[in-house]
Order: sequence, then C-alpha cells, then structure tokens
Amino acid sequence: MPSPNPQPAIVLVRPQMGENIGGAARAMWNFGLDRMRIVNPRDGWPNQKAIAMSSGAGRLLEEAQICDSVADSIGDCTYVFATTARARDLTKPVMTPEHAMEVAREKIAAGEKVAVLFGPERAGLENEDIAHANAIINVPVNPEYASLNLAQCVLLTAYEWMRGKVDVAPERMELAKTEWANQAEIEALARHYEERLDEAGFFFPEPKAEGMKVNLRNMWSRLPLTRADAQMLHGMLRQLLRRKD
Amino acid sequence: MPSPNPQPAIVLVRPQMGENIGGAARAMWNFGLDRMRIVNPRDGWPNQKAIAMSSGAGRLLEEAQICDSVADSIGDCTYVFATTARARDLTKPVMTPEHAMEVAREKIAAGEKVAVLFGPERAGLENEDIAHANAIINVPVNPEYASLNLAQCVLLTAYEWMRGKVDVAPERMELAKTEWANQAEIEALARHYEERLDEAGFFFPEPKAEGMKVNLRNMWSRLPLTRADAQMLHGMLRQLLRRKD
Repeated sequence: MPSPNPQPAIVLVRPQMGENIGGAARAMWNFGLDRMRIVNPRDGWPNQKAIAMSSGAGRLLEEAQICDSVADSIGDCTYVFATTARARDLTKPVMTPEHAMEVAREKIAAGEKVAVLFGPERAGLENEDIAHANAIINVPVNPEYASLNLAQCVLLTAYEWMRGKVDVAPERMELAKTEWANQAEIEALARHYEERLDEAGFFFPEPKAEGMKVNLRNMWSRLPLTRADAQMLHGMLRQLLRRKD
Repeated sequence: MPSPNPQPAIVLVRPQMGENIGGAARAMWNFGLDRMRIVNPRDGWPNQKAIAMSSGAGRLLEEAQICDSVADSIGDCTYVFATTARARDLTKPVMTPEHAMEVAREKIAAGEKVAVLFGPERAGLENEDIAHANAIINVPVNPEYASLNLAQCVLLTAYEWMRGKVDVAPERMELAKTEWANQAEIEALARHYEERLDEAGFFFPEPKAEGMKVNLRNMWSRLPLTRADAQMLHGMLRQLLRRKD
C-alpha cells in the first residue's frame, strides 16, 4: 500500500537498465516518495535486475503503474514537470529542483495531482515527451561536467521534496541533551584556573599580568562550554596539581 | 591542476569499494568540487575500479591526497564536518547538508580551510573519527528507510555546496582577521593535555580511560579556539607542571 501522504508521482519514461529503475526506487523512498510510474521499460516488466537493486524499496516496484505512453502515465495529473539535462527552446518555465518542489508542494496542498517525468538514461526525454509538461526541471550542475545518472537525478528531486517539506531546524544543537554551563559556573572555572596559575607564576612579568588575566577570562567566556566540560576542566586542573611525591 | 575556487575538501575515510571512490569523484565534480582526500583506502592506491568508475572525473583521483590518518588528512583545516547516518550523543552541532554548506561558505569566504569527512560504506565514521570534527552533518532521510550510499551522500553535500553558492556578502570578510587554530594545532594541543593528564593519572579508572579521552578530544575540537588561545593553553599546562621545589 502506498503511503497516504499526498506527493508527486515519479514517472520513468522508457528506462533502459533495470539497475537504474531499482536505484530510482531506493532514491525515492529515501526521501519518502513511493508513487512510481514506468512508461515502456526497455526490458519488460517485472525486471529482476530492478528488484535486485531495490533492496528495501521493492514495494515501490510491486506497486508501480506500468503505462504504454507518457500521456497515459500522467492522465490523472494537473501539473507535470519534465527533467532535462539541457535547457531547451520550448518556451516553458525552467526551474531548479528546489523551486520546482516548492511549486509542487503548493499545487499538491491545493489538491492538484503532480508528476515529474525522467527520461531514458542515454538520450533523456524527447521533445514530444516534454510537450506534455507544464514546466522544466534543470539541475544546476558544473557546466564543464554533467554526468548525473537517472537515480541521482531522482535522488536530488526527492531530496528537494523532503527538504522543503520537513521543517528541519537549521541547526539542532541537541539542546535537550546539552546542559550549558551558566555564568556562575564559568566564573568559578575562570577563578579556579586564575588562582592556580597565579600560584604557579604564570602571570609574568608583573606589568603584563592584568592583561593576561583578561585574555584568559575572555577565552573562558567566549567558549561554548557545557556543564560537563566545566567539571572536566576543574578535574583536570586538580589532577595536574596533585603531586605524586 | 585543481580548480582555483576555494572550496571544502572531501575526505573519504577508509573507503572500501573502488567503485564508490570513483562514484564520489563524479558526484563531486558534477557540482564543481575537486579536492579529494582519502584516508587508508581498504584496497590500496591507485585503485583500478575507482578509475574505471570515475569516467570524466579521473583527474580528481590522480590529484587526491592519500593520508595515513584522519588527523593527517585535516591537519591544515580550521573547521571540519563529519557526516553520520545517526545523530549521536557527542554534544556537537548537528546540521543539515544545507545549513552545513552555508556555514562552510561563510568560513571559506573568511579565509578558513574546511573539510567534510565521509565514513566507510558499511559502518560509517567511528566515534574517534568524529572526535576530530567541529560539527556533524546529518541528511534528513525517511526515518523508515535510510539507504544512502557513499557517493549519494557526497552528491547531496556537493549539490548543497553549489546550490547556495551565491556571492557571499563582503562584510563576512572581516572575520578573516581572527586567526583560528587549524586542526594540526588543535591536535597538538589535545595530545599535549592528554599526555600530561595521563602521567598525572587523570584517566582513571582504566576501563573508563578511552571514553574519557574521547570526551576530552571532543571538547577541544568543538571549541572555537584561536591560535592565541591554543598557545595560551599550552603555556598554562607547562607552567602548572613546573615544580617550584
């Protein structure tokens, strides 16, 4: 059973190698997509190499809709993207995967059905395939070297679908687990070091002592120390000064 | 010749299959990255399978730096990311690839050297590899199915590097005044403290010693230490251990 989450359908148009179909299934499911459609797979269907390659995502192949034509594959869709390696002169909006998936999210949220067409490995989509599309997705690659394969292209599209969909905090500091040292603890740590270093003659020569103390205080207060760090730093100092003799 | 564009180094740590090393090279070059470093490749170097797989990106393999240890591979770097499949309890910032590459762009624009560590295919990075890192990159995948391979993980990171690579605001350049300690300097500092603390009997009891050492390493690599901080911390340790008697 496909997942209940509304999502774009991924349509592989005349894919050649079973391995790439399996790889595309894995790429999709990594990012939560599980509606695959396949138009005229070169080596027929089912395809053992696709199954072998799809480990863990085999369900997508079992549930894939096999279609006779691009038109058939997108008959129920209201908005269709076509992925191409080169931007072509077709007078359609050309979008990055990022922007395309934003558009897809908006349309799907509004109840529309969306599909993304991916061409055969070697030649990509034909102009007549692209003619079915409302917009083009073009992955911005290194102009000197564009060698994305089918599964990678599906991967980046699926990644963009999930990336914009999940509200991931930009930086999860694992705050729940991290107990930061508070100012009183930083102060106690700074004082402990300052006192022992003073006894050890670190703040020398005398005229520079104040400046050195300020530098050291600045360092402690600037460092993002956890409570555990502070305890470890206290323990280190005590142990270093424990004479064995 | 590597491209002149400042960029993060991609470090493959103990990669197993040559095919994946070649695939990682292609993934990188698709998005304009061409600084590869490899730590202890399982099957030696050069690797024919890597070369066969790298079609068109073979230059990256020829120019790759082969290193004996993670520490060696990032000695010249001031900020290091480690990619992991699971977030772990290491009290380091965990970032999406998107946010991590934003941070990388800012740091590189400010003159810093940045590296991203990728672990071996099967097991990923060990905790002691991660101990060298300032932050963790975690790709937000489908929690029911996470099967990204090495080259795909490199692909998404390189994609995010290129996707966001718009001109960095000029005011960022002011940060260049701060001289951050590089990894070789942090490593020397960590070793200095570890050795003296070991002699002082700090890592006790024995069964906990390894974990305590990893904790301490994690702290050093997580703290934003300047070159001057590192020198001060060395000097403090030396002075504390100078016996007056």
